[in-house]
Amino acid sequence: MAHVLGQNQYGKAENRIVRVYRDSTRHEIKDLNVSVSLRGAFEDVHLTGSNANCLPTDTTKNTVYAYAKEHGIESAEGFGVRLARHFVEDTERGVVHSARIRIEEYGWERIRTPDSSSRFIGSEEVGHSFVRKGQEVRTTEVVYDGDRFRVVSGLKDLVVMNTTNSEFWGYIKDGYTTLQEAYDRILATQVTARWAFGFHGRDGEPEPNWNRSYQQVRRHLLEAFAETYSYSLQQTLHAMGTRVLNNRAEVDEVRLELPNKHHFLVDLEPFGLKNENEVYFAADRMYGLIEGTVHREGVTPVIPVS
Amino acid sequence: MAHVLGQNQYGKAENRIVRVYRDSTRHEIKDLNVSVSLRGAFEDVHLTGSNANCLPTDTTKNTVYAYAKEHGIESAEGFGVRLARHFVEDTERGVVHSARIRIEEYGWERIRTPDSSSRFIGSEEVGHSFVRKGQEVRTTEVVYDGDRFRVVSGLKDLVVMNTTNSEFWGYIKDGYTTLQEAYDRILATQVTARWAFGFHGRDGEPEPNWNRSYQQVRRHLLEAFAETYSYSLQQTLHAMGTRVLNNRAEVDEVRLELPNKHHFLVDLEPFGLKNENEVYFAADRMYGLIEGTVHREGVTPVIPVS
Amino acid sequence: MAHVLGQNQYGKAENRIVRVYRDSTRHEIKDLNVSVSLRGAFEDVHLTGSNANCLPTDTTKNTVYAYAKEHGIESAEGFGVRLARHFVEDTERGVVHSARIRIEEYGWERIRTPDSSSRFIGSEEVGHSFVRKGQEVRTTEVVYDGDRFRVVSGLKDLVVMNTTNSEFWGYIKDGYTTLQEAYDRILATQVTARWAFGFHGRDGEPEPNWNRSYQQVRRHLLEAFAETYSYSLQQTLHAMGTRVLNNRAEVDEVRLELPNKHHFLVDLEPFGLKNENEVYFAADRMYGLIEGTVHREGVTPVIPVS
Amino acid sequence: MAHVLGQNQYGKAENRIVRVYRDSTRHEIKDLNVSVSLRGAFEDVHLTGSNANCLPTDTTKNTVYAYAKEHGIESAEGFGVRLARHFVEDTERGVVHSARIRIEEYGWERIRTPDSSSRFIGSEEVGHSFVRKGQEVRTTEVVYDGDRFRVVSGLKDLVVMNTTNSEFWGYIKDGYTTLQEAYDRILATQVTARWAFGFHGRDGEPEPNWNRSYQQVRRHLLEAFAETYSYSLQQTLHAMGTRVLNNRAEVDEVRLELPNKHHFLVDLEPFGLKNENEVYFAADRMYGLIEGTVHREGVTPVIPVS
Repeated sequence: MAHVLGQNQYGKAENRIVRVYRDSTRHEIKDLNVSVSLRGAFEDVHLTGSNANCLPTDTTKNTVYAYAKEHGIESAEGFGVRLARHFVEDTERGVVHSARIRIEEYGWERIRTPDSSSRFIGSEEVGHSFVRKGQEVRTTEVVYDGDRFRVVSGLKDLVVMNTTNSEFWGYIKDGYTTLQEAYDRILATQVTARWAFGFHGRDGEPEPNWNRSYQQVRRHLLEAFAETYSYSLQQTLHAMGTRVLNNRAEVDEVRLELPNKHHFLVDLEPFGLKNENEVYFAADRMYGLIEGTVHREGVTPVIPVS
Repeated sequence: MAHVLGQNQYGKAENRIVRVYRDSTRHEIKDLNVSVSLRGAFEDVHLTGSNANCLPTDTTKNTVYAYAKEHGIESAEGFGVRLARHFVEDTERGVVHSARIRIEEYGWERIRTPDSSSRFIGSEEVGHSFVRKGQEVRTTEVVYDGDRFRVVSGLKDLVVMNTTNSEFWGYIKDGYTTLQEAYDRILATQVTARWAFGFHGRDGEPEPNWNRSYQQVRRHLLEAFAETYSYSLQQTLHAMGTRVLNNRAEVDEVRLELPNKHHFLVDLEPFGLKNENEVYFAADRMYGLIEGTVHREGVTPVIPVS
Repeated sequence: MAHVLGQNQYGKAENRIVRVYRDSTRHEIKDLNVSVSLRGAFEDVHLTGSNANCLPTDTTKNTVYAYAKEHGIESAEGFGVRLARHFVEDTERGVVHSARIRIEEYGWERIRTPDSSSRFIGSEEVGHSFVRKGQEVRTTEVVYDGDRFRVVSGLKDLVVMNTTNSEFWGYIKDGYTTLQEAYDRILATQVTARWAFGFHGRDGEPEPNWNRSYQQVRRHLLEAFAETYSYSLQQTLHAMGTRVLNNRAEVDEVRLELPNKHHFLVDLEPFGLKNENEVYFAADRMYGLIEGTVHREGVTPVIPVS
Repeated sequence: MAHVLGQNQYGKAENRIVRVYRDSTRHEIKDLNVSVSLRGAFEDVHLTGSNANCLPTDTTKNTVYAYAKEHGIESAEGFGVRLARHFVEDTERGVVHSARIRIEEYGWERIRTPDSSSRFIGSEEVGHSFVRKGQEVRTTEVVYDGDRFRVVSGLKDLVVMNTTNSEFWGYIKDGYTTLQEAYDRILATQVTARWAFGFHGRDGEPEPNWNRSYQQVRRHLLEAFAETYSYSLQQTLHAMGTRVLNNRAEVDEVRLELPNKHHFLVDLEPFGLKNENEVYFAADRMYGLIEGTVHREGVTPVIPVS
């Protein structure tokens, strides 16, 4: 029975936390989903039933909530850095060799009310009412191995569409080809993006401005999608990744997963109508799936391939 | 075998349609999910295997796409009115006695790019690039029975939160009570709202401005949620419904389904920390579910109860 | 502001409960999702902010868990009957006029192991290990208004397919028809069924054998689907409902919602292949949706229409 | 702008295919979801807008359907091997260097009807009616690089529970510990398993009996879960992986992802009841997540870590 215990990891996943700041009547909120995963000296836990080296997943959960109080949540990335460092450096007997913190963040915006001050007793401004944005989910993954950090942030569920400036032709034809070439098609996708930072957190290296970075990367992804005249979704992918690298020095690598959300032109001829690129059937499945990485020269890519 | 065929209906559900308007370089899009359901003289279809009275669901689908071209989509409600009328009035032999059109609409907004004109050859403005809003889904249900229309519009998946101005106390205590009274709690819910219009479409009655009506109802729901000092989610529900009736004459009835998305204060005392309404666990299930109707006096409610 | 508070109800939804019976080493489990909804004298809760008549949703949740211990869970229906009676009859001041209990039940089966007794110390049989069936979800809804019960049970997510014995032709043709008639097609659907019992629980009327009833109704639905030579999904629906009424005296009414899960024959001619009803594309959306009720003569249908 | 195009891949995802065998009146079906992903010489597609080296995702889809006819589907793995080989070896100009085929398979079983032959005209047996099993989903991933195959099969969504024989104590305590030690708890998880085969397909190496292998691996996973007296979910994981390696020579490596689906004992003391491990609240989130690999000595693990 020469079997080997290979890579293993564990922790509490999907700790849903809302942190409220009440420093003024204009409250602030952070809404996160935090998952902890630890790697280390856990052979005995698997092999002998001894849990002497096991930090319970319940404790990792408690730590997340306690840290939200003790240290606050300035950004998902900053919170992740702090948590990862704790698990590696503070856990007894050095059993945690590496910690990974994954966070999803859900955006909220204030509910605006006209002339709200006059409707309340006194003149309190409505600073405690929020509506969830519901657009993309912001993501980050922080890994710390006791020596350096690796931070990969991202977003998902950002759905975009160009109604023109997209073509697709000149491709390989073989015995299984039926696709007609397209010279003006809809291009739509649901963006999943991840980007790796040059930051490693050694020798007092300061953290980037994570929140500003996020807003700017998101902006450049959208702009590149909108402004690229596309001959394939691959080309658009490349333009999006390149745009981020060109504009954000703190980012070394971008990886995109772009499902090609097909919009099929409906044949209206049987009804005596001409469909001049006006009426589309939006299909669920199947879909094209285009994935790719763009990175700076000399940098070793770290974002895993699906 | 004295069994009776009772209520029955059928049609094509979830026809996903994107309609593009290309009248200028500033395109417009409508993104709908349309479900058709017909009621009528369909006994034979069930009982004898004769389909002589059956308008195939496939044909109802084709009609949706053809109508999007022929008549355009000014609003979900207007499109539903037109489709419902067609199925009842135009189907052969009068077999369709009543038609119901349900529509979900997904909102999009333009991608804004700074100074975009200068980046393109020529000076074409970026009027063809969109990002899905992702917030609430707009809904409508139009029923036409050959005599009058009944239109019930709504929204769903609109998630809101008040971080204060919510209490809950003074309730019944019995042998199964453990809940502590709360004098300052988070109130969060995911709004599902439906509202019925006075419009019936007889004798040339003009249609309301559906799109403006939607924007205003949505606004009043949000404002009432934000501005109500709440002693129960029921009270907030009532305030939201009343606010709409007070402000929108075209609406006769409002029904709300408000899950109480619990945010539990995390006990941090074991860690020597005091949680001053700052750190919450956002629970998935179970949840309170509060449902209710507010309507104008003298009006018979038409929105079904779940 | 002559606005009226109409129908309203509230309670704790989706209480997930697992009940274990350990009377022998052969354990038994029940896995339920229970939702409580109360109707009654709740005007003040909505209008004045007084919660004097409000039984908190938290208390309804506690009651569910306590009853699982006190009374056990013999069947979902029986558990619902007991809970509904409690909320109406035992709540202070008679404020609850009607209670509705909805339950989803998830089936489990034992994990079978060969000769398991010999592998354990002693000879304990493996009577504590289960795998979730994962097929249909069993449902029930019990309503009690202080006078009589109304019990509607059902199932959902039961996916079935006939690979032949299904035709569809002879239907209405109009200007929007493109569908080809079919003389041998796949018929597949995801069954949602609900059936109402004659049981009302007055004057010591005994409860039906709920568990046996469920197993038999499920069996007749499947058999009718399998054995019906179908000229439309409507016809199959009618056969399924009728079969249940013919065989189960305790059931007065059956309603079925049958999405027509389309399987489109793939055109393989461009590749020099003939598709003899062998290769299909299984579509997600759009789909036909066929709904209908069959009931005994003289019985007033009670199952709501969607 | 020294940016590098890194790893990239594309193809048609989620091709839903149902293949029917009608060789006798006892039909057979295969129900698959097939995703194709190609890697190769696609720089130009990304960088220049030339699609000369691009095999359209639409063509990869057509090929899946055509192959289902031409070659049939004996097993998901065998179908994947054939498809992967085709894309690498048959695509023009050798542009595809590696192909990955991912398949999900949904199980079906026959609908049994008592004495069905006598109910039909003639005596045709009901061999064409199926109900979807709905339990686990079978998975496979086949990668071919022109030299060797790598096949990783698996399953997901298999939910299991032990109602006893599970303890958890003796773990690390720190300032964030609140968990009570447990000497008899419920252990429940939703198994995601993947296992790698020694098969590489070179030099005429015959394929394993994929279907038999799947059934046996599944059986050993279930048995090991049922029969392991557990001091941690990690220990159970290790036992499950080891059991497969001990019994299935064709498997070299097993990786398991086991969410700890928490069942919390409900405190019934406030109601004067004693909860003797009978009534549990089944939580959704958060959950522990335990992941790990067991492999044969001397074998390099190939299953990616999440």
